[in-house]
Order: sequence, then C-alpha cells, then structure tokens
Amino acid sequence: MRQRNKPWADDFLQENTDLVIPNPTEYKNKWHELFGNDNPIHVEIGTGKGQFIAGMAKQFPEVNFIGIELAKSVIVSAAQKVQESEQENIRLINENAENLIELFTPDEISTIYLNFSDPWPKNRHEKRRLTFHTFLSRYENVLKSDGELIFKTDNRGLFEYSLTSFSHYGMLLNEVSLDLHASNDPENIMTEYEEKFSAKGQPIYRCKAIFPNKN
Amino acid sequence: MRQRNKPWADDFLQENTDLVIPNPTEYKNKWHELFGNDNPIHVEIGTGKGQFIAGMAKQFPEVNFIGIELAKSVIVSAAQKVQESEQENIRLINENAENLIELFTPDEISTIYLNFSDPWPKNRHEKRRLTFHTFLSRYENVLKSDGELIFKTDNRGLFEYSLTSFSHYGMLLNEVSLDLHASNDPENIMTEYEEKFSAKGQPIYRCKAIFPNKN
Repeated sequence: MRQRNKPWADDFLQENTDLVIPNPTEYKNKWHELFGNDNPIHVEIGTGKGQFIAGMAKQFPEVNFIGIELAKSVIVSAAQKVQESEQENIRLINENAENLIELFTPDEISTIYLNFSDPWPKNRHEKRRLTFHTFLSRYENVLKSDGELIFKTDNRGLFEYSLTSFSHYGMLLNEVSLDLHASNDPENIMTEYEEKFSAKGQPIYRCKAIFPNKN
Repeated sequence: MRQRNKPWADDFLQENTDLVIPNPTEYKNKWHELFGNDNPIHVEIGTGKGQFIAGMAKQFPEVNFIGIELAKSVIVSAAQKVQESEQENIRLINENAENLIELFTPDEISTIYLNFSDPWPKNRHEKRRLTFHTFLSRYENVLKSDGELIFKTDNRGLFEYSLTSFSHYGMLLNEVSLDLHASNDPENIMTEYEEKFSAKGQPIYRCKAIFPNKN
C-alpha cells in the first residue's frame, strides 16, 4: 500500500476513537461488549483503504467486523470510508498483525481475512509473509476451532507458497479458487487492489482453510 | 484422449509383449526382475501417446518407468513412440488405474505421475476423477512412504478440486505451481496435451504431494 504523508492523521484518529480504537488491547475478550451484541467477530488483517470491510459489513449486518491496518496514513482512509458507509458493525485497529494475540483471546474470532498481503518475494523475507507459520500459529490461537482463514491474492508466487505453508502447518483446505472472478461468487466483495488487478485480466486466487488440530 | 479405431492394435500388442506386458498382475512385486535392476520404479497413470514417459525415461536413465493406459488404440501409439526412443527402461500396461493394487505390491513404487487426467467436471462424476479419495488410497498403497504423487493439468476446476481432495485425505503439499511454464522448470517434460494447451497461453498447473500418514 503506497502511503502518503497525512499531517492531519493524528488529529483525525483522536477525534474518532469510537471507530479507530486507541487502546485495543483493553478490549481483549471484551469486543462483544464494545459492539453491544454477541454476533460473531470477523477480522481483516491489512484493511487498506477499507472497501472490503465496508462492503462486507453491509452485506453481513449480523457479523461484527474488525479491520487491522498498520499504516496510519492508510487507516484514516479506511475510517473515512467506514464513516460514509454508516455501518455500525465495524471497528478499526491501527496495529501490527504480529500483535494479534495481544488483541484477542483464544477462540474470540470466527473468521480471518487476509487480502492481498505483501508478497515479500525474496526467500530471505519469507518470515515476513502473513502466511508464514509463525503467523498461522497466531491465527490458530485467536480463531474458534472451526474458524476459517480466507486468503485472497493476485500474487501467484505468494499463493503457491501459502498453499504449501497451510498444508505443512496441518491446515485443511476447504476451498481453492484459481480464478475467483471466473467462478462468479455473488458474495465476493472486492478490495481496491482486487478491482484494479482483475480489471487487467489477472486471475484472483482465493483459499479457505481451517485448523483441524486446534483443541 | 480421442480414440480412433485401430484394427491392427491387437496384432501389434501380441507382437510386442516385451514392451506392453500382457499379464501384468504376474509381475506384482517382481517388476524389478523384469527390468533386471533395482532402480526405482515410477508409474505414469494415463500415458496417452507416450511423449512424457519416453522423454522422462531418456532424461532419467536410472529410473524404471511404467506407463498405464486404458485405451488400446492409444497405448499402441505410446508403444511406437517408446520403440522409436530406444529406451530400455520403459514398460507399458494396458489396464485400468482402478486395478493399481493388483499390479503392484505396497511400497513398490517411488513416484506416480498423473498427467492431464479427464476432469469429469460434473459433480455426479466426482468418483471417476483420478484424484478422488478412492484413487488416492490406491496410490498410497503402492507408493513408498516418502513417494511422491506428481499431478499436472491444464484444467482449473480439476486442479482446484484435487488440492482440496489431497488436503482432506491428509496428503502434504510439497510444491504447487500455478503456471509451470512461467516458472521454467528445466526438468519438465511436456505431454502432447501440455504442448498443445500451453501453446495457446493456458497456464499449466502442477502439484507434488506425499502421504505423510503412511506407515
């Protein structure tokens, strides 16, 4: 995600603490209280400019969505998009996905979305890929026992790597799509990236997987 | 594989019993004797017209290759191609892959190749796909404990299905390629189909997987 410096970002975040939660670790095991209901919680890691989470929240009003985005200058765009959408079932967190288990208690999450993560194509950067086993371990920790990881990307190398990474971790592949837009899933909500790359004719890959060995 | 009637096929097969083995079940657990060495045995299921097996046998002279092809009118073409190649390390079997465990003893095979199998796209024909679990069970039976299944296809639906089928069977994905020719594997030998479809710009998918739960 290309970032532009936004000098007003800090002020914006301070004025919108109901949407971009300033001390998210305080809500570990209490996110339901913040949403005011017991609906399932879905987390998007790398929310970007928010088109996906805003679209999903509208499509699934009985799900609570939490978007995590590391870049401050990007999450403010997501926050603006969420405000425009007027969806009540979204909160945002300006954090690193590495800290996932500080943010959520085991089994607190029903679904995790990984959308168009940085491919980190060099072998020496393997550890930074969000589908490296250290990240999978974090997802397994916070997901319910039947909770799904739903991963979308246009990057062939990252998708190839991720399928083998999921398999070696012991995950179960429930669905693999090698050209998501050709298979025409009416429930698919596109991210900004997805719109751009699929318009160029590039296939979008998607995988749904669970952690069957989770106790 | 489109089949033309070849009235001379029976005569040809009777004259070439050293290459197309007429009573293959007799060689169960004795294929090494037939080849006259202890080299590893690789099996191709659905050998078609034989370009793959002939090319592989030339590239890997210290491997014994056995090609299984159900269609009599097709296996004669493979036999002719093998004869032209003058490779000693190939035998062919005119049989149904369903009978694999009648042909080989457990652990007799080091590698199985599935190349461009019939996709059987209708759900009600799932059982006929060569990556359906009943077939995976046969492959597991005859493969050595670290033996690989190497699967290539140009059919997106079949590849998507097969990855989930492998995963649900408990197989481990060691390699996934979603555009084999883009990744430029110098050891890749193309089948006739592969040449034709990749020339049209279609991606070729390949997966290498093992059976980690095999005792």
